[in-house]
Amino acid sequence: MGYTTRTTVDASFDDAIDATMAALEDEGFGVLCDIDIQATFQEKLGEEFQRYRILAACNPPLAHEGLNEEIELGALLPCNLIVYETDEGEVVVSAGDPEQLVGIADNDALDSIATEVKERYDRIIESLAAGPGAATET
Amino acid sequence: MGYTTRTTVDASFDDAIDATMAALEDEGFGVLCDIDIQATFQEKLGEEFQRYRILAACNPPLAHEGLNEEIELGALLPCNLIVYETDEGEVVVSAGDPEQLVGIADNDALDSIATEVKERYDRIIESLAAGPGAATET
Repeated sequence: MGYTTRTTVDASFDDAIDATMAALEDEGFGVLCDIDIQATFQEKLGEEFQRYRILAACNPPLAHEGLNEEIELGALLPCNLIVYETDEGEVVVSAGDPEQLVGIADNDALDSIATEVKERYDRIIESLAAGPGAATET
Repeated sequence: MGYTTRTTVDASFDDAIDATMAALEDEGFGVLCDIDIQATFQEKLGEEFQRYRILAACNPPLAHEGLNEEIELGALLPCNLIVYETDEGEVVVSAGDPEQLVGIADNDALDSIATEVKERYDRIIESLAAGPGAATET
């Protein structure tokens, strides 16, 4: 599973979501889409599943730059953060690796954008690892 | 740009969106998230952009199977279809390649799921290429 950067968070699931949202905002990302996997599986399949959310995040200036460079890039956007509970009751926040994702496009002009997103995601994960409140400190 | 399957559609942008939604439904996908890139860039950046939507689609049984196999897979989900206008006024519908996307995970157990999604996406693109009404024919 070498395509994510992740950390366990010493917080409740809901607090981890709030802290992740705040950390994303601090790094210039808006959450365009918040997918509740647990609720989706319950509703569509009648299956129990652990708490699991997919936060599809977008930094508008970087997305704009990327799409101006390559119009099809939207097929790979946005890059997600996921928040889920493990069987052991731990809460994990995990960020997809934008360098690997954008790497699919094999376009050198996108490399610096992907690296910029990855650096921001790494800072988000680090701040959440440091503590759920740390992400929103200034 | 070898990471998408795409077609131009002989329809207005709005009709192409409707036809794509219907074709997704026919193949068992729900649209979990409909991102309006044009509106997002206008609102967040004050920038004009062509009409561009990202439809984040999910087939619940296949997503369930994938997440049970690999919990971090959500960082790569869902797989998008994009609908956009070109500078020439053509409307393009394009599907991300789930085999390449899921290939990042490098987990053989996910291959058949990715192939199943790709086959469905290929049928969607073929049906849209055949005509905007064709996708909903039974």
